[in-house]
Amino acid sequence: MLHRQQIKDVSSLRMKKFRDSQRLFLAEGEKLVDELLQSRFQIAGLYASSPWIVTNFTLINRKKIPVFETAVHEMERMTALATPSPVLAVICIPEPPTLLSSTAIGHSDAPVNLLLSLLNGPSSGLLLALDGISDPGNLGTIVRIADWFGITTIFCSENTVELYNPKVVQATMGSIARVEVQYCNLKTLLEACTGRIPVYGAFLEGNNIHEEDLSAGGLLLIGNESRGISETLEPCVTQKIRIPSYGNSPFGKAESLNASTATAILCAEFRRVMNLE
Amino acid sequence: MLHRQQIKDVSSLRMKKFRDSQRLFLAEGEKLVDELLQSRFQIAGLYASSPWIVTNFTLINRKKIPVFETAVHEMERMTALATPSPVLAVICIPEPPTLLSSTAIGHSDAPVNLLLSLLNGPSSGLLLALDGISDPGNLGTIVRIADWFGITTIFCSENTVELYNPKVVQATMGSIARVEVQYCNLKTLLEACTGRIPVYGAFLEGNNIHEEDLSAGGLLLIGNESRGISETLEPCVTQKIRIPSYGNSPFGKAESLNASTATAILCAEFRRVMNLE
Repeated sequence: MLHRQQIKDVSSLRMKKFRDSQRLFLAEGEKLVDELLQSRFQIAGLYASSPWIVTNFTLINRKKIPVFETAVHEMERMTALATPSPVLAVICIPEPPTLLSSTAIGHSDAPVNLLLSLLNGPSSGLLLALDGISDPGNLGTIVRIADWFGITTIFCSENTVELYNPKVVQATMGSIARVEVQYCNLKTLLEACTGRIPVYGAFLEGNNIHEEDLSAGGLLLIGNESRGISETLEPCVTQKIRIPSYGNSPFGKAESLNASTATAILCAEFRRVMNLE
Repeated sequence: MLHRQQIKDVSSLRMKKFRDSQRLFLAEGEKLVDELLQSRFQIAGLYASSPWIVTNFTLINRKKIPVFETAVHEMERMTALATPSPVLAVICIPEPPTLLSSTAIGHSDAPVNLLLSLLNGPSSGLLLALDGISDPGNLGTIVRIADWFGITTIFCSENTVELYNPKVVQATMGSIARVEVQYCNLKTLLEACTGRIPVYGAFLEGNNIHEEDLSAGGLLLIGNESRGISETLEPCVTQKIRIPSYGNSPFGKAESLNASTATAILCAEFRRVMNLE
């Protein structure tokens, strides 16, 4: 049986202020916890049903992770989900790399060097930057899309929703274990790109993506769900693009696509074109 | 001031059993209500703040829609949203077309005739069928995607989440006003297609969509979020396709894409190829 304080400590991590002060976050569900157990993340503790512990005993033991057998009524008090799952992990939030802290980014070539090394290395020519994505489901889905399309790092403006929000973590479906998400001053980052890396942004008046040459890749900037790309960042976009629409209903047509939907279509099109020949 | 019973009647529409018995559903928010006011839907009543009524007076008056001035504390008791908006519409659920009722679909050419007329007409060569989509956000997003890509009708298996669930309605962002969603026996519908319309379905072992000839269009079948396309419907799929992944992290890769993400990528690729030349 868990101690009352322990239940309280774990359930407090559903709130940002406690995640910030404790540097811990929650991940729930068998598939997600399984992916995180095999990742770079350090697991502070596992709360699980006795059948889950039995099944995963060898792995937990090898990794020396503290495990607490948890009854359903205890899980119900800790979970951030509508229906509690058999396992909940408390995970350490990794320190953000100093390379992108606001002091380091200020007056140096650090950000552009990082971008170039990622572009030419693990991220295979395509990077993603998010300008104020506010819906947790969208951020989580975009992390999953980045993982699918081999984008290893996502740069987020400081007003983008927090990565460790339980709804974001769940929506990544485990991709949080493989994609780096970096919060930074996007303006400084994008300004450093000027003349060196193409910066693509989606605008209603942009060029049809199927008529634009995407073969060189670059950085793809995605705007906020309702405001789009902010006025501050718009001058940094070197190629304005749009996803063509085909609606022809007599009652008008869709004005836009959801931010994560648009990200998916754009990433798929970049990868298709970049992999021709 | 609203009558207590009126508030109770409206708020009861958050539940499926009351939507079914009253044949009414809810839509909230200025953009969504605005789109529905201009659509084929019949509005039974509007509950709105006094500034909203003033701004929209001419339109409401012309359409002869009953309007009730609603205070914030009253809206809070009726809304299905986390934060109430200035306007809530109560809308009549249209009768489903008899062409696709289970009796009509039984032993006739009705479904295939309908499919062919849609394919060659308003839906411009591309139709969508959903096999047990269960997440309301996914269904709403797919309706919005269909609208963007000029797909006028979506066929849903009977176990697909209900279209008039408030979360679905909100996620359509108004596209519910333009896209027809038909619940029917998909097995009967797809069997009627055999030999006449290509049926595409996404499978992990399918052909890379960029290597498959999609130019003829057809019907695209999307499976359930966790189970994929059901065993009963799999034999009706004539072309198995997959979205290629590009992940190369040392920690593994994403196993799948979200159902609405995959739908978006597939629809975009169909329309691109179908519009070449």
